[in-house]
Amino acid sequence: MSAKTKINDLPIYMAEMGERAAKASKTLRLASGLTRAAAILAMASAMRSRRKVILKANAEDMAAAKTKGLSASLLDRLELTAERIESIAVSLETIAALPDPVGMEDAHYAPPNGLKIARIRVPIGVIGIIYESRPNVTADAGALCVKSGNAAILRAGSESLRSAIALHEALVEGLKSADLPADCVQLITTTDRDAVGHMLGGLSGNIDLIIPRGGKSLVERVQKDARIPVLAHLEGICHSYVHEDADFKKAREIVFNAKMRRTGVCGATETLLIDAEIADAFLPFIADDLIQAGCELRGCARAREIALGMKAATEHDWSTEYLSAILSIKVVDNIDEALAHIDTYSSGHTDAIITENTTAAAQFINSVDSAITVHNASTQFADGGEFGFGAEIGIATGRLHARGPVGAAQLTTYKYAVRGDGHIRPV
Amino acid sequence: MSAKTKINDLPIYMAEMGERAAKASKTLRLASGLTRAAAILAMASAMRSRRKVILKANAEDMAAAKTKGLSASLLDRLELTAERIESIAVSLETIAALPDPVGMEDAHYAPPNGLKIARIRVPIGVIGIIYESRPNVTADAGALCVKSGNAAILRAGSESLRSAIALHEALVEGLKSADLPADCVQLITTTDRDAVGHMLGGLSGNIDLIIPRGGKSLVERVQKDARIPVLAHLEGICHSYVHEDADFKKAREIVFNAKMRRTGVCGATETLLIDAEIADAFLPFIADDLIQAGCELRGCARAREIALGMKAATEHDWSTEYLSAILSIKVVDNIDEALAHIDTYSSGHTDAIITENTTAAAQFINSVDSAITVHNASTQFADGGEFGFGAEIGIATGRLHARGPVGAAQLTTYKYAVRGDGHIRPV
Repeated sequence: MSAKTKINDLPIYMAEMGERAAKASKTLRLASGLTRAAAILAMASAMRSRRKVILKANAEDMAAAKTKGLSASLLDRLELTAERIESIAVSLETIAALPDPVGMEDAHYAPPNGLKIARIRVPIGVIGIIYESRPNVTADAGALCVKSGNAAILRAGSESLRSAIALHEALVEGLKSADLPADCVQLITTTDRDAVGHMLGGLSGNIDLIIPRGGKSLVERVQKDARIPVLAHLEGICHSYVHEDADFKKAREIVFNAKMRRTGVCGATETLLIDAEIADAFLPFIADDLIQAGCELRGCARAREIALGMKAATEHDWSTEYLSAILSIKVVDNIDEALAHIDTYSSGHTDAIITENTTAAAQFINSVDSAITVHNASTQFADGGEFGFGAEIGIATGRLHARGPVGAAQLTTYKYAVRGDGHIRPV
Repeated sequence: MSAKTKINDLPIYMAEMGERAAKASKTLRLASGLTRAAAILAMASAMRSRRKVILKANAEDMAAAKTKGLSASLLDRLELTAERIESIAVSLETIAALPDPVGMEDAHYAPPNGLKIARIRVPIGVIGIIYESRPNVTADAGALCVKSGNAAILRAGSESLRSAIALHEALVEGLKSADLPADCVQLITTTDRDAVGHMLGGLSGNIDLIIPRGGKSLVERVQKDARIPVLAHLEGICHSYVHEDADFKKAREIVFNAKMRRTGVCGATETLLIDAEIADAFLPFIADDLIQAGCELRGCARAREIALGMKAATEHDWSTEYLSAILSIKVVDNIDEALAHIDTYSSGHTDAIITENTTAAAQFINSVDSAITVHNASTQFADGGEFGFGAEIGIATGRLHARGPVGAAQLTTYKYAVRGDGHIRPV
């Protein structure tokens, strides 16, 4: 197998893909929840039965990536193993087992005119997903779309295209075995970069929503150029704020976990705020914990007076998502200064307060305008799985439709069913 | 008073308006529901106390509009009277009395990790509203935004700008009397058409959502040029489908009401579909009702064989929103043909089935992919007031965020509050 990199007429190729997706979405929208779940279970089986083919395709991607000189971390993201394919299959089974998000009546209204009105969750339609090198996104994104009744158009990173093609064949096998159209999940098989531009234009109204999943430059381009709705987060500049009434033991554990559990995830804390009242008593200990674990600290002037071993934080640090073992630290006078700092610098992803003071916690949760506000827990819980949503396709920090983890339920919209018995509207 | 039509530097004027709106929205977001309601009640009082000033400004708009030769129906939309101002005040009081849509926890999650997660409704931020000649939109839109905690930037039609300025002064009086910033509701006081372009660009991220309210050409331009999310409907090509198991008495009343109650509203039925099985027995009667009431009928060949007095419908008729006393009529073989017709021609606004057959009704509601599906009631119930939402700012037919009537609740988004007790995330 080799990645197809040439398509003779890209506009026609993309336009036809959009039309097929729109057509397939109509079938998928009316398919039962059992059929959709059966397709996803069959996708999981196909992942296992096609393991050798998938590994072979991935080996070709890996060889090409090594030739190109990709970094070790990119190679790690790209690599599939027997264990990783098994974990893809298990993830598909988890998605299949989620409650059906389609058809649920999530609100009812009984206005004085006597009508009975229900709000019903329905699929969005066609979702375009643009991602980078992790092959598992092909499976997760495709399955989450099918679970929520949406057709998907997938655009994988060029370095993982051979793997994506092999994984996609397993998804199609699953769809076919449940008598669903193969076009429910389509993969773009050209590496032509203009394909993304076509997706961002919406393919003549045939894509309803774009979800980019990858690094900042990808998301930035999508947000800038898309002419259709986008669910995404550009970055996660997350804060942990240790309030003067914090329990120090909890605070040490939470802050350490929020920064160091995984430093490369979007929910990792990038800035620690500490009330001046407790900075002397708390900061040296957490600073020591972090330094021992290899974390670089960049403090404001007051923080550097209290604890040793910090570099000076510059203005730039407060607006930087490190995604590595670096933490900026600022001592604040009180909760108002903490809230003002977060209001200025947060990326609207996830921000936490650590305190035993319920009034302060309530003030924080009410005031912080981020998708996820946290009290006495690690910001690294910012994840659809941890929310109980099953798999997630990403985290959204925009204002419309869905904020925070985007799972199958967030990939639905609603319509109303208005039920009368001959009701006419008076003039 | 005269409408200000010249702004020396429009980009700066608009940019500063955006910044003021973003700043005011932060104050408004944290204001209590009682404060927001008090502001709206004070707006209502100010409408009454400023009645003479408002009428004087409106008289100037009317005089200019007559000089320009505006149509009688446009003049009627533009005109304010003492009664209409009273009804604006009453509408504001109704909005003030709505349940507070902000701060409500509308979902709870208790995942296995032990966290308690709540989803909380919060304001969207800053909403730009672009409308045409009806002066009451200034008051309704401004008040709905304040009710939902959103700052508003209003752009009125040029012919109603003097009225809008006078009404806006009453809104500002209400805001001030509740100690809210005047910038919570701003009105663009230039008629420069480029102001709309600036709004559609989002004012450097300071507008979160655009709502156009007006005719098709306005909505078309907004949907085409907006770089930020839009809630709108382009048109309402609504269908009433009389199924073979319909109760004829109900069907006659519903279809008549759906077409003729008001022919100029977006929820008016534009196409009648009738099962062939009952066309002979039903069509002549409803056709007679409609013709007697002055409605022009345009039928398919089969319909014209059954009832007299119809013109021939062309392909163009099925995709036309008449907004007047014209109805297209098609005889269909069965529900599948009706569903296929709706799938092809509906604008996704509101479509109805009339039947006593609950299986057919369920099939219709499940299959029709419109914002509002109706069983045994008039399509003219497509209205936020009739849904019990209080006032509405419009009807949305897009796929994302909100579909159907957009009232105060639909002008909110959500965030999560994650509550732990020292929870850290395992590796």
